[in-house]
Amino acid sequence: LRVSEVLVRNYFLACGAICVIAAAAGSVVLFPVTRIHAAKVNEPAYTSSGDMLPPANYREWVYLSTGLGMSYTAKPADAPNFDNVFVNPEAYHSFLATGTWPDKTVMVLEGREARSNGSINQSGHFQGTGITGVEVHVKDEGRFPGKWAFFDFGPGANGKLIPQAASCYTCHAEHGAVDNTFVQFYPTLLPIAKDKGTLSAEFLKDEAAHVAPAAK
Amino acid sequence: LRVSEVLVRNYFLACGAICVIAAAAGSVVLFPVTRIHAAKVNEPAYTSSGDMLPPANYREWVYLSTGLGMSYTAKPADAPNFDNVFVNPEAYHSFLATGTWPDKTVMVLEGREARSNGSINQSGHFQGTGITGVEVHVKDEGRFPGKWAFFDFGPGANGKLIPQAASCYTCHAEHGAVDNTFVQFYPTLLPIAKDKGTLSAEFLKDEAAHVAPAAK
Repeated sequence: LRVSEVLVRNYFLACGAICVIAAAAGSVVLFPVTRIHAAKVNEPAYTSSGDMLPPANYREWVYLSTGLGMSYTAKPADAPNFDNVFVNPEAYHSFLATGTWPDKTVMVLEGREARSNGSINQSGHFQGTGITGVEVHVKDEGRFPGKWAFFDFGPGANGKLIPQAASCYTCHAEHGAVDNTFVQFYPTLLPIAKDKGTLSAEFLKDEAAHVAPAAK
Repeated sequence: LRVSEVLVRNYFLACGAICVIAAAAGSVVLFPVTRIHAAKVNEPAYTSSGDMLPPANYREWVYLSTGLGMSYTAKPADAPNFDNVFVNPEAYHSFLATGTWPDKTVMVLEGREARSNGSINQSGHFQGTGITGVEVHVKDEGRFPGKWAFFDFGPGANGKLIPQAASCYTCHAEHGAVDNTFVQFYPTLLPIAKDKGTLSAEFLKDEAAHVAPAAK
């Protein structure tokens, strides 16, 4: 089921109900657009044991960026993979308007195998069909201490919560450009955060430290 | 204007009009979902001189894949860029159902600068804010001989038609996995084309030639 279909169906149902009332009363009513709620299909959902359900259809969410062999240490990856990042459209549109993330933001990090020789390609890298991993970073304010959590998804499995003591939480908090997220690697969002003044103090400090040596 | 908003607005207008009739007649009507047409906002549009208008909002279309420094010759790129590919959602959903592209398919190839040292990243590559180029591959059956055309977009400019004699047309025709397009580089679509039996004879010939040496 696509988001657009849900929108239409929800609207169809809401409108049908109102029209019945309108017809019965013999009058015409306007249908407020605010009655439509489509976000729920893209919101985080969990099992009773606290695992996260795989976000359905994330490949149709809004694409943020891709890295190849990105590493936070100087050692290059032995077999670099691509990482694609997607976010639920509701959170993306909220970011465009505000420069930061709303509650129920869901970001999916999808690892893809990097191939080089294939079809007519002879140099550089393209993405193969193999998925090398899926991780989710979710903002669910009422559920997690610190508001955010990471989940690791094995093939065909629900997501397992990565404990809050793991280094990814501190690293995102200390270096994320906006609210625990690496907006510095999302080229369509970084200018918006700059414009809205939502860049974190931690990120600005990192940037100042980076710029200084190069300016010597 | 987002697709979802257009969907809602179109439906709103259509429904409003029908409800007026329903109310006037004192009866209730059902609102067929087939009355809704949202595709037009993502369809190709041209100036009177034949230039193509930039596809608005393509970053919210469906993402297909990314390459880094891909080259169809053995010589590596001096300064490799990322290439991100997006397609209009209507065409994507049609492909999921049929394994091939409908009329009015619009694919956008966006070049992005590749950066390596930035923020906490020390190895591999991520995408910077700089756009290195935008090209569109569009299927408009009634407009172009061969049904497809390429347009090159300079910064802030309309797209210029790449002449049909250019090598990109013959290369796509001779090596594209599905209907003049490089579906072999789009990992979510290649399995669908295989499943639906829509892989081109040219691509299957290429694959057979590739497999033979490796199998020796």
